[in-house]
Amino acid sequence: MTDPEHQTADPVAAERLDQQLRFLREVDRLKSVERQNILADGSRRENSAEHSWHVALAALCLSEHGAAGIDRFKLVQMLLLHDIVEVDAGDAFLHDPDALAAQARKEAAAAERIFGLLPADQRDVFLALWHEFEARSSPESVLAHAIDRVQPALLHEATGGVIWEKYGTTHAQIQTKMGVVQEAAPRLWRWVQSVIERALAAGRLRAG
Amino acid sequence: MTDPEHQTADPVAAERLDQQLRFLREVDRLKSVERQNILADGSRRENSAEHSWHVALAALCLSEHGAAGIDRFKLVQMLLLHDIVEVDAGDAFLHDPDALAAQARKEAAAAERIFGLLPADQRDVFLALWHEFEARSSPESVLAHAIDRVQPALLHEATGGVIWEKYGTTHAQIQTKMGVVQEAAPRLWRWVQSVIERALAAGRLRAG
Repeated sequence: MTDPEHQTADPVAAERLDQQLRFLREVDRLKSVERQNILADGSRRENSAEHSWHVALAALCLSEHGAAGIDRFKLVQMLLLHDIVEVDAGDAFLHDPDALAAQARKEAAAAERIFGLLPADQRDVFLALWHEFEARSSPESVLAHAIDRVQPALLHEATGGVIWEKYGTTHAQIQTKMGVVQEAAPRLWRWVQSVIERALAAGRLRAG
Repeated sequence: MTDPEHQTADPVAAERLDQQLRFLREVDRLKSVERQNILADGSRRENSAEHSWHVALAALCLSEHGAAGIDRFKLVQMLLLHDIVEVDAGDAFLHDPDALAAQARKEAAAAERIFGLLPADQRDVFLALWHEFEARSSPESVLAHAIDRVQPALLHEATGGVIWEKYGTTHAQIQTKMGVVQEAAPRLWRWVQSVIERALAAGRLRAG
């Protein structure tokens, strides 16, 4: 059943497969990184792997509300790998600029290590996509960030904003985070505003 | 903050967004569908949402081992939505042909209902991708099935095949399931064979 001849015949392909499988094993840990958001049914916290699936699918459904000419495959790839750095760096729910900068340094090191498990050509493609996402330097990366904000808003809406209440989140903090939605997709931003207004009215989001 | 003028100005786009958000809320339930496989660290069962993320990412990494000329975006889209029917139909780990046929009917009804939440054009695209996946009628759908088998093999390898042992899975049952891997990507199949052989040697997979 084993085929040592094949390994000899194409050692490069065999070595590439080993590297790819090592990477895929390592990122399995993203399923154990808990986010602060809870599922729509309120049953438990969401993890970063299932979140990544949900945003990739949301991108397929919602990309028409962004700028024209978006490369949808690039958008989806970006969202599939945007949180992989959390395997090393954890999920952060930060508003403080110093803490955000420290987290960004941890994530950049994580990207080098984890994508570095892949064959060099794939490592370079994934690293470039991740850096583009972080830099918000393209229409795809701006829309990817917007969708990464809209999906949690869907969960906040379903659960009445209990997580905002739990962490004492303020209206100003959320509006800062949602700025990228306004930039990328005004229609999505208007919907997010309606979620925020209901949470404010219900006292789940702090004014100010 | 709200923009009723916009709703009046573009009621079609507003209605489309409502439908898309309804769909995205509904599929959040896929995060609560448990599979029989356990995570690589053995900590708990995997759910179908995080599995869908893992196979979509695996497709990006492993598609080079399949046939030449694969449409990678189609492959990834297929894998992002291949398990959504489980929101209604559950995850089945079946080897019996009658049970498999009954499950297929449940899944087809689920696809109509759940993708039917979307605007008609998106419903049609998603339904077509799902039916193509099920029919294995294209190189992309065959490779998608293969990757959907390779990812669990990665978890079985990491956990020493304990789930195969728990369910009394036989070598013949697994080989039947892995036939599509041999068809789509011989190099991946040879690696799967090595996982199976180790599980057999360790007594985790029943001979026969």
